[in-house]
Amino acid sequence: MLAVTRSSLPRVPWRVCRAAYATAPSLNPVIEQDIHHFSKILPSTSVVSTLSPVASPASDLDQFNNDWMGKYKGQATTVVKPKSTHEVSQIVRHCWERRIGVVPQGGNTGLVGGSIPLKDELVLSLANMNKVRSFDPISGVLVADAGCILQSLTDYIAPHNHIMPLDLGAKGSCQIGGNVSTNAGGLRLLRYGSLHGTVLGLEVVLPDGTILDQLTTLRKDNTGYDLKQLFIGSEGTLGVITGVSILTPPAPQASNNVILALPKFDNVLPLYKLVKQQLSEILSAFEFIDRTAYELAVKHGQGRALSDEDVRGAACFVLVETSGGRREHDEEKLNHLLETLLEAEKPLINTGVLSQSPAQFSSLWALREGVTEAISKEGKAYKYDISVPLSSFQDVVDGTREHLRSKGLLNDSAVKHVIGYGHVGDGNLHLNVVAESYSPEIQAALEPYVYEVVASHRGSVSAEHGIGSMKTHALHYSKDEVSIALMKKIKEIFDPRGIMNPGKVLP
Amino acid sequence: MLAVTRSSLPRVPWRVCRAAYATAPSLNPVIEQDIHHFSKILPSTSVVSTLSPVASPASDLDQFNNDWMGKYKGQATTVVKPKSTHEVSQIVRHCWERRIGVVPQGGNTGLVGGSIPLKDELVLSLANMNKVRSFDPISGVLVADAGCILQSLTDYIAPHNHIMPLDLGAKGSCQIGGNVSTNAGGLRLLRYGSLHGTVLGLEVVLPDGTILDQLTTLRKDNTGYDLKQLFIGSEGTLGVITGVSILTPPAPQASNNVILALPKFDNVLPLYKLVKQQLSEILSAFEFIDRTAYELAVKHGQGRALSDEDVRGAACFVLVETSGGRREHDEEKLNHLLETLLEAEKPLINTGVLSQSPAQFSSLWALREGVTEAISKEGKAYKYDISVPLSSFQDVVDGTREHLRSKGLLNDSAVKHVIGYGHVGDGNLHLNVVAESYSPEIQAALEPYVYEVVASHRGSVSAEHGIGSMKTHALHYSKDEVSIALMKKIKEIFDPRGIMNPGKVLP
Ligand SMILES: Cc1cc2nc3c(=O)[nH]c(=O)nc-3n(C[C@H](O)[C@H](O)[C@H](O)COP(=O)(O)OP(=O)(O)OC[C@H]3O[C@@H](n4cnc5c(N)ncnc54)[C@H](O)[C@@H]3O)c2cc1C
Ligand SMILES: Cc1cc2nc3c(=O)[nH]c(=O)nc-3n(C[C@H](O)[C@H](O)[C@H](O)COP(=O)(O)OP(=O)(O)OC[C@H]3O[C@@H](n4cnc5c(N)ncnc54)[C@H](O)[C@@H]3O)c2cc1C
Repeated sequence: MLAVTRSSLPRVPWRVCRAAYATAPSLNPVIEQDIHHFSKILPSTSVVSTLSPVASPASDLDQFNNDWMGKYKGQATTVVKPKSTHEVSQIVRHCWERRIGVVPQGGNTGLVGGSIPLKDELVLSLANMNKVRSFDPISGVLVADAGCILQSLTDYIAPHNHIMPLDLGAKGSCQIGGNVSTNAGGLRLLRYGSLHGTVLGLEVVLPDGTILDQLTTLRKDNTGYDLKQLFIGSEGTLGVITGVSILTPPAPQASNNVILALPKFDNVLPLYKLVKQQLSEILSAFEFIDRTAYELAVKHGQGRALSDEDVRGAACFVLVETSGGRREHDEEKLNHLLETLLEAEKPLINTGVLSQSPAQFSSLWALREGVTEAISKEGKAYKYDISVPLSSFQDVVDGTREHLRSKGLLNDSAVKHVIGYGHVGDGNLHLNVVAESYSPEIQAALEPYVYEVVASHRGSVSAEHGIGSMKTHALHYSKDEVSIALMKKIKEIFDPRGIMNPGKVLP
Repeated sequence: MLAVTRSSLPRVPWRVCRAAYATAPSLNPVIEQDIHHFSKILPSTSVVSTLSPVASPASDLDQFNNDWMGKYKGQATTVVKPKSTHEVSQIVRHCWERRIGVVPQGGNTGLVGGSIPLKDELVLSLANMNKVRSFDPISGVLVADAGCILQSLTDYIAPHNHIMPLDLGAKGSCQIGGNVSTNAGGLRLLRYGSLHGTVLGLEVVLPDGTILDQLTTLRKDNTGYDLKQLFIGSEGTLGVITGVSILTPPAPQASNNVILALPKFDNVLPLYKLVKQQLSEILSAFEFIDRTAYELAVKHGQGRALSDEDVRGAACFVLVETSGGRREHDEEKLNHLLETLLEAEKPLINTGVLSQSPAQFSSLWALREGVTEAISKEGKAYKYDISVPLSSFQDVVDGTREHLRSKGLLNDSAVKHVIGYGHVGDGNLHLNVVAESYSPEIQAALEPYVYEVVASHRGSVSAEHGIGSMKTHALHYSKDEVSIALMKKIKEIFDPRGIMNPGKVLP
């Protein structure tokens, strides 16, 4: 259920954001001579191309030219799948010399069009770079090829009693290199912090093919500027990440979760405060889903539904997870919390359902994790993952719904649902607008509306998914001119020819 | 005891590392006209200068021209102490136009000469920028002026049941801006991670006086390159940090500590593994001190000594701290650990002393935290804070001692002690060589010897203290040419005139 599939890709996706590309420097398309050159560097199985002499059928390119949402569509003729850093370096150097645009692609689960070519750039897939390089069970430091799938790394270290410091719904497909490139947040950020803290080192092929080796396993190293930080979250625009060194925490001995039904949104904030206080260091997730999100998840068979009685009168739900070193202690803390909640004079919750078995534990999580997938089954989603003050979560969702209604767009043939869910502990709201199909009218009603609402709260227009090609025009809502000018200068240092993921991130 | 004083500064410190400065672009000294200009921007109390019309006595400059160790000495004629970001911006812009070198100075507790002018640069002290800007007790986000002293921030948030994510022996003097600029590690890194993860936003005055406002309080924000990361650990060479937004964790409800005496160093590693396993998420520090370090701390009255019997046969000591949400639970875990340790067939420890009261808790910590100060009382220290694999800690210390002995330098009039202590959990060893006085012979015996040892372990020549002016020539032991070249390009973007902390960090 957690693995992400791309079976439901539409045939004719609606295309967006082409304007940005106009500003990229002029680049050359891949031509037959390039294929010849790649064939000298790579085994034949590592080059997929509609160009001769390879002449693969066009459908072989589909999975690389279409994104997970079916929203973005590229026209790449060629995909290369190198197996080593050296091969990546040779390919990139050739593209540098020939001024061919390169789109690094991981699991292609990104939600902002970053992994899809805007035109006919070369797709450099990391899928074949999928080996663990080393793991030290004492320090917990894992060094892996960038193309390792998150779930397989999780599985690899599990017998050593360690877990990955991040976890997300796309874990069955997304790669650690993609996670680092997007600075993915996910479900464990509350507990283990961001990748800026847990990534210890990176190996990167720079746009001219040079290998930058900062693949240290040291937990502390203050020798000069921390260059690797620039690649974390730069979405493949500064270089191709080929190796990742990351600190993995010891696996908690025990994990519990509970889903709480709340009579009104206003209770979320005081609930969060109380839960933080009582669970303290064992609190590992505090996730919010509104009633609409809950119902869609249940409708599309994601996870276990509460009983009708449990759901009655609930405006929203909160999933609380604990992870700790001693089951009895954790359960004592969690039970004590539930008692406090249920016995309060003015209870913050209507009811709470505690998982009693590993299966129940998973199915409560599936409810929350499955919302993304449920939405994709329900229709076409406009996804805004924003940071706004927690107290405004509900207002932003309700305000957007009203705004769409006022434009006459809230009906079965246009927008079907406006949904809010997200990582409360991180101030991160996923605002999703589910439509019958993508349409320019809805797009125009939503943007810049949503971005202006975010800016008015000094929020972030992209809390986790990044900018990709979707939000280059919206970057300025969260970053001022001084910052954007500096970013452009940094891009210029690393990639003066503009070959690396052209048209992404920077306006 | 924890506050750092500079009372014991020597009159004629030994000078080092002047060569580096030769490579800096030519800069102008501060002259009378500049003082006039500063006097227009700042109130008279904010300018200290030996130049007229201010004409302060030279001794007023001493505390700014001498470092904490008494090792580095600058010749600044002028110190400015702006009170606001706007004032900082005006001063820096003036220096930019006039090409005057600027040394940002926080608490001046840095240990690598970074905060001391190499010649007669202007010292820009942040001491007057010491206001908390905001604190949100629900999210734990603190926004403060860069000049706030770490201890005062700790005190500020304590009534709200939060703690700073970092703690170090210099907390009574060092400033949050200095901590960020040096990417300080300290005693809580094991638990709360590095500042690259906990710093949410920065406000920085760039070398041309522009204010870069990235002072967000958002926990998650993936909008473009994370520029603030570059300032974390860049030791004032890219701009002056004026404001810091930082995530503070909830205060643990209970803290305990225990000091363990080990018969041999080889037991440290298996002990660490066991402790991590058993204490899991409540483990908040695992600090190592060797016998010599312990004895110096006791000799100079730092903290509580163990009984003679406890110390007998101990080769080294480990301080373990727990912090958790429920005292009974934590004590149960700790007691269980001690039982396991003492009842083992082949015990890893000789004995352990558990603190029984807040006073004892503090005095056990004082032993560890006081080592730095004890060393400074004992003599002149060559301090190497390095990262090497934990298993090599003792070899590095013993090897260095033997190396000095072989050079005939291990005696009362030259090197008195070679000491190892540090943050085991972070792989960070403080190697200290305590001498009667600084001397070129000892220096020559130690460098490049120590750096070569570190490089042979692929370690870091500076795990936490940074490069400053002390280690510019040693940067290449930990960073390759590609990295150093990129760092220079980044410096060039931010500071093309080279006015910001000239001669520091980059060779
Ligand atoms: C069901 C589902 C749930 C999700 N949940 C979350 C969530 O909770 N939190 C979250 O943050 N995101 C989430 N996402 C978004 C997405 O999964 C993450 O952004 C993920 O980190 C992308 O990894 P990927 O390997 O699929 O990268 P891709 O989609 O292939 O690429 C993403 C970007 O990174 C670049 N890139 C990829 N690999 C490399 C590399 N090796 N070197 C340089 N650049 C590279 C690409 O060019 C592109 O710009 C979710 C997505 C789905 C479909
Ligand atoms: C007793 C003692 C114990 C210590 N323990 C530790 C420890 O455990 N871990 C550790 O990492 N360090 C430790 N240190 C080193 C030192 O305290 C830290 O590096 C501290 O973070 C420096 O802060 P400061 O305000 O004193 O900075 P300063 O010493 O004033 O400056 C340090 C560097 O930062 C720059 N700088 C300072 N403020 C700013 C600013 N606002 N903007 C731009 N640049 C600025 C300076 O130019 C300089 O290069 C210790 C030092 C002492 C004396």
